[in-house]
Amino acid sequence: MKFRLHNFFRSSTSVRLRAALNLKGMDYDYVAYALRKGDARAPNYLAMNPAGLVPSLEREDGQVMTQSLAIIEWLDETQPEPPLLPADPDGRARVRALSLMIACEIHPLNNLRVLEYLGNAFGANDEATKAWFTHWVGTTFDALETSLARDTATGRFCHGDTPGLADLCLYAQVWNNRRFDIDTRDWPVIERIFAELDALPAFSDAAPHNQPDAA
Amino acid sequence: MKFRLHNFFRSSTSVRLRAALNLKGMDYDYVAYALRKGDARAPNYLAMNPAGLVPSLEREDGQVMTQSLAIIEWLDETQPEPPLLPADPDGRARVRALSLMIACEIHPLNNLRVLEYLGNAFGANDEATKAWFTHWVGTTFDALETSLARDTATGRFCHGDTPGLADLCLYAQVWNNRRFDIDTRDWPVIERIFAELDALPAFSDAAPHNQPDAA
Repeated sequence: MKFRLHNFFRSSTSVRLRAALNLKGMDYDYVAYALRKGDARAPNYLAMNPAGLVPSLEREDGQVMTQSLAIIEWLDETQPEPPLLPADPDGRARVRALSLMIACEIHPLNNLRVLEYLGNAFGANDEATKAWFTHWVGTTFDALETSLARDTATGRFCHGDTPGLADLCLYAQVWNNRRFDIDTRDWPVIERIFAELDALPAFSDAAPHNQPDAA
Repeated sequence: MKFRLHNFFRSSTSVRLRAALNLKGMDYDYVAYALRKGDARAPNYLAMNPAGLVPSLEREDGQVMTQSLAIIEWLDETQPEPPLLPADPDGRARVRALSLMIACEIHPLNNLRVLEYLGNAFGANDEATKAWFTHWVGTTFDALETSLARDTATGRFCHGDTPGLADLCLYAQVWNNRRFDIDTRDWPVIERIFAELDALPAFSDAAPHNQPDAA
């Protein structure tokens, strides 16, 4: 199976999906979209993905899949090895909850189009934009750190000793944070897990600076 | 199995979970949190849910589950009837993607704490707050309407003729929209599906105005 991955080097939802494809050993052609130039709002892209967001995963049968977490769950169901979710329902719920903390409570607020809205409607300058970004990262990373630190289910990675869905989200978010110089030193468990992940080629090969469209 | 549901009548993530529990025929005690009064930031709640968000689902074994979509997936795995996701991976990916469009691209941006931040940091007045809320609903509802209207997999509900995960998200979001007088007339498929759902007691019993803490 080979895919066409419609994505952008710095998009954190794209980082998640690239690392998932790498973990599953899936081959893909990289199709880059310059989000600031509006590539993802072009008619031919909107025909594939009406939301105008990246990533989209185009399959050999022509089907186009959207929303990174939905695509990753599909990958995990159709290519079970290595698993990205634990086998037990309680473990799956924990990993999904950790993932959604990042995917729902941080990323949507710090998306490019949201930061642009803040500038256009409220005249947010660089300082105010950074404060906004940092606030939502901090609010949820504090809670995520607590959740990871207090639970014996946390291992070398977010859940046990194999990387999974929550690690994909954590890894991508830490890269995203660096755009605004947010250090992870305040969150030692998150920092430790990020370092573990960054030592794995499946993850580091998915990092923003290693993509063909990186500036 | 009986649960304690920590939630708030108007919270749309709470609406999703209440309707899911109702569809599964699960019994729960309703524990109300007045979000504007900071109930979900109280130490005893943060001990259960470090993110300070509703809903949380407390089980008889004392385990507390967080993040509405993670809890609903857990319910679906542990109480399979009636299913909230299709059996086939492609269908599951479609339903999850439709759900995440609402759960990631609308709800997090229009949360109470975000609207408060806009007022505090940018002096957003009622008009600017309504414009913000309406913008993010419209952006994603336009894409959701297109996705639903063009796909023959859409049936009486978002996917076929039985209500599922995407319907839980759609139903809750339409109720949330009404706080800002957003009508669904511009999105006829969404409007039609909402009406179908609102005719089902499992959904209407979960609606904000039918909760014990409704003003």
